[in-house]
Amino acid sequence: MPSSFQSVSLAHASRLVNHGPTVLVTSAAGGRRNIMAAAWSMPVEFTPPRIAVVIDKSTYTRELVAASGGFALCLPGTALVDLTYAVGSRSGRDTDKFTAFGIAARPGPVLGLPVLEEGCAAWLECRLIPEPHTEQAYDTCFGEVVAAAADPRIFANGHWEFRPDNADLQTIHHLGGGNFVRAGGTIPAKSL
Amino acid sequence: MPSSFQSVSLAHASRLVNHGPTVLVTSAAGGRRNIMAAAWSMPVEFTPPRIAVVIDKSTYTRELVAASGGFALCLPGTALVDLTYAVGSRSGRDTDKFTAFGIAARPGPVLGLPVLEEGCAAWLECRLIPEPHTEQAYDTCFGEVVAAAADPRIFANGHWEFRPDNADLQTIHHLGGGNFVRAGGTIPAKSL
Repeated sequence: MPSSFQSVSLAHASRLVNHGPTVLVTSAAGGRRNIMAAAWSMPVEFTPPRIAVVIDKSTYTRELVAASGGFALCLPGTALVDLTYAVGSRSGRDTDKFTAFGIAARPGPVLGLPVLEEGCAAWLECRLIPEPHTEQAYDTCFGEVVAAAADPRIFANGHWEFRPDNADLQTIHHLGGGNFVRAGGTIPAKSL
Repeated sequence: MPSSFQSVSLAHASRLVNHGPTVLVTSAAGGRRNIMAAAWSMPVEFTPPRIAVVIDKSTYTRELVAASGGFALCLPGTALVDLTYAVGSRSGRDTDKFTAFGIAARPGPVLGLPVLEEGCAAWLECRLIPEPHTEQAYDTCFGEVVAAAADPRIFANGHWEFRPDNADLQTIHHLGGGNFVRAGGTIPAKSL
């Protein structure tokens, strides 16, 4: 299927995760691939665009990230709440969750990592910046964004547009225990 | 004014920021105090509850955090969108922003840092975990939560409750450029 996503300039990449969405972390190495959910990620730098994401050291994802030196973050829309919780609740060590859940993925343009578009608002391919101490002490992995793209129905010209007609693509934010809130209803701040 | 907030057990503290809200970072040292906004924070550990927050090394807040060894995160509700953007848009080096904006604060119970309750959903007092490399390379400061409290109208018994009647307390999430989205409309995930 041709991609309906549009490339996001690296200068705008941090905006994709600025508001704290729960993400799907994808990884691949040695012919294996995996997908998990992560509520804990944030940008740490605009230029170059860098992010931090917490990936528990016991996970299969951590093995694949260490082996390949990269990971991708995909932003599930509201329509993927159940899938997000499902892939976050079981390990991919013995199961290809893409196959098990019928998840379509395409190879990212720079690192070739599996990225999701159907039902997602955006994705970011990231090259791991090795930081052994923080990876060990805080399960915190740093990465530099090397490619990003978004569904132009919700992110275009470097800006999010949360509107009633794109509610299914609006980002989700995990409260815990399988309960998510949707980000919606843009509120512009007035100058004080 | 007596506090209407209720203490949040440290075991539940990470839930306060699990969904990626924009926070107000407060700090104090040597008789000075400051408040700034930060969109970039996340939990990194449940037990002990630890968080990471990006505080630019050029800010006055970083000076005060380094001097005191602590910071607090306060979660502004929707009613505080304008104030959040305002305190995030100017420095407190030459101005006490609490006075300038008429912000009421009380001393936190463990570190004595100024915490906001009026218009906020919750706050967390954090002891800085010194990590010179990540502070320098990524402006990323790690902290351990030592006290937390929330407005029981929106967070009670260890859980968020986003309802139509508490919209003013619902957390805000900065998209960039002064545009925020409100987290609202809880969506429970179904098992797949």
